[in-house]
Amino acid sequence: MHKQRGLSERELRAWQTFFRMQEVLRGRIEQQLQTCSGLSTADYTVLTVLSGADDGRLRAIHLGTLMGWEKSRLHHQLTRMSKRGLIERHSGEARSTYVTLTPQGRQALTEAAPRHSDHVRGLLIDCLSPEQLDQLAEISAAVLDNIEQQDHTADSGSDQQ
Amino acid sequence: MHKQRGLSERELRAWQTFFRMQEVLRGRIEQQLQTCSGLSTADYTVLTVLSGADDGRLRAIHLGTLMGWEKSRLHHQLTRMSKRGLIERHSGEARSTYVTLTPQGRQALTEAAPRHSDHVRGLLIDCLSPEQLDQLAEISAAVLDNIEQQDHTADSGSDQQ
Repeated sequence: MHKQRGLSERELRAWQTFFRMQEVLRGRIEQQLQTCSGLSTADYTVLTVLSGADDGRLRAIHLGTLMGWEKSRLHHQLTRMSKRGLIERHSGEARSTYVTLTPQGRQALTEAAPRHSDHVRGLLIDCLSPEQLDQLAEISAAVLDNIEQQDHTADSGSDQQ
Repeated sequence: MHKQRGLSERELRAWQTFFRMQEVLRGRIEQQLQTCSGLSTADYTVLTVLSGADDGRLRAIHLGTLMGWEKSRLHHQLTRMSKRGLIERHSGEARSTYVTLTPQGRQALTEAAPRHSDHVRGLLIDCLSPEQLDQLAEISAAVLDNIEQQDHTADSGSDQQ
């Protein structure tokens, strides 16, 4: 591995092992979802997040924030899913866009979810102890909080919200 | 969030928080690399892995394994990077393909690395304790080992290596 300037051995080990793990994991999940359900990980994520919202409906900008996606990525993803009838987009007040899960989208998620859960369990959950699951949740929450705080600091000096 | 059948509350919390974290993190890293260096995360990962190999050279199949990528994804990525002069592909014995870092690829990595390291530090490293860094490394290694063992079990019954 290329030695990254400014990171200690401990930091490098954590970062490189984590980065490789999430790459491998994402590859497996993508492959399983495509093969078993004809959905990409991005499709599945959008369907999951919408299914948790009231009436399966969210403002597009809120959906993007929840998934950590940039505007253009979200736009292209929603266009593809809309063409396939998995979601619908409609305009709200003040130039806002809303995204709604269609019955077809909900059905696709319901069909894909059990096998996806089994797969996640086999890849990650079952090889970690309960303590490690909690550690992973705490580490992940700390990183998300950190990034949100940085965004907040950056936003407070600009008009971008 | 959609309730995934077969996962406990603790398992769901770990999985969903982790999944969201790596999505957000990947988005930030992609954005920073593109903006500062004109490289995608995939470009950067290939350059990093090759730079750690002897003579900056690896068998394509080995490169794919190290990154956890499928053959077709690797092929398309290497074609793009080859057109930009970042890597070169050449044939080896027994229909194998080798990938070599070009001087231009090495320079791109050298220029991108310091800012990427700073960014990784700001996003993830600095908000975690030394204990959490070690926990993250151990969790990631456990997941990678688990997946490799599953592959080994699957391969031992087939011709695919």
